[in-house]
Amino acid sequence: HLLEALTRFFTPKLLAGKNILITAGATMEMLDPVRGITNLSSGKMGFALAQAATRMGATVTLVYGHHQVTPPEVSQACFAGSAGEMYQTVMQHIANQDVFIAVAAVADYRPQQISEQKLKKSESTLTLALIKNKDILADIASLPNPPYCVGFAAESEQILEHARQKRLAKRIPMIVANHANSAMGSDHNTVTIIDDQAETPLQADEKINIAFEILCHLHARLDPH
Amino acid sequence: HLLEALTRFFTPKLLAGKNILITAGATMEMLDPVRGITNLSSGKMGFALAQAATRMGATVTLVYGHHQVTPPEVSQACFAGSAGEMYQTVMQHIANQDVFIAVAAVADYRPQQISEQKLKKSESTLTLALIKNKDILADIASLPNPPYCVGFAAESEQILEHARQKRLAKRIPMIVANHANSAMGSDHNTVTIIDDQAETPLQADEKINIAFEILCHLHARLDPH
Repeated sequence: HLLEALTRFFTPKLLAGKNILITAGATMEMLDPVRGITNLSSGKMGFALAQAATRMGATVTLVYGHHQVTPPEVSQACFAGSAGEMYQTVMQHIANQDVFIAVAAVADYRPQQISEQKLKKSESTLTLALIKNKDILADIASLPNPPYCVGFAAESEQILEHARQKRLAKRIPMIVANHANSAMGSDHNTVTIIDDQAETPLQADEKINIAFEILCHLHARLDPH
Repeated sequence: HLLEALTRFFTPKLLAGKNILITAGATMEMLDPVRGITNLSSGKMGFALAQAATRMGATVTLVYGHHQVTPPEVSQACFAGSAGEMYQTVMQHIANQDVFIAVAAVADYRPQQISEQKLKKSESTLTLALIKNKDILADIASLPNPPYCVGFAAESEQILEHARQKRLAKRIPMIVANHANSAMGSDHNTVTIIDDQAETPLQADEKINIAFEILCHLHARLDPH
């Protein structure tokens, strides 16, 4: 607590007065009371951004799913376990946000049915019917007066191409491209920031440092001089 | 470390000379490099049993999947992420084991295909084909000269009935029945030990204490006087 307070004190308050909503972690789409479809997101990148933004003076609302590390202290933190819950929670808190950073790895699909009791199956094969979830980031970006939206593209191949397409498809000003397999769960990351002005590759670094660089980049775009 | 060493020193060595293999945590059946089907098992109950058995003098081999807490120090620990990996790892270490305690929540099914690259889908619905995994506990129990096998039944309803059926279906001498929804992720548990002699309900308690009681019960069955 003391170290964090000191670090916070000595960090330049580049984001003072800004309200920032950040999603982090993994959603889990339950099949029954105990089983579900999820992903390897640890929450570390989103938590690093929430911590860095707080140190830089922003008022941070953190909406987080399943995670492997402790969430940082921020102005407000809400747990949202599934894609549907995360959609609802983000929508409830989006008014008055200046920035929305969508780092959470949100399931694209959910099971058509959630069994109330633990499934008992003996068949040698099983078919699971899935339906598409709503796209939180695209829906926030298409609001009448949207916050500045930052997406994350965690890809396993053709990373920059997929990220460019994702930025255009979701109509967001900025996306951060990274390699899913090596980034997820790690304390380190290698990213490229893509916006309408440039593609900016950052050097491989700890996630907390990557977070500061992304937020400095964001600050320059929010308040250009 | 010191506290654990002291606790270990002062714990009666009821399981001295016994080799015990314990599985713990959740398996995750990958759909692509980052997504998969898993469950809410935290690893806590299996880790508590591994820690308690070690304190009681056993030589413990721990095979663990995905988990939310730190694994305890045991003689040997192996990570096995999927049901298939856990099956292989258990089979590799089963020779010379006196006891096998299967606590891991192992997936019953896995996706028929694992995509090498992150799946890109735009359809509004999706169908997932799953095939049945091999049953680790049943296969160990049917070995020519099997170790004493203990299963866990984490059920959401008709807990005792399902556990009794599971014990008979897998042909194992002992099963521990508990309530999946309240046990998974919690530091506490409420269990009933079912064997061919009795059904023994234990008082709700911390998992480390439940672990000791299960192992004392097991000790009495292994070495009846």
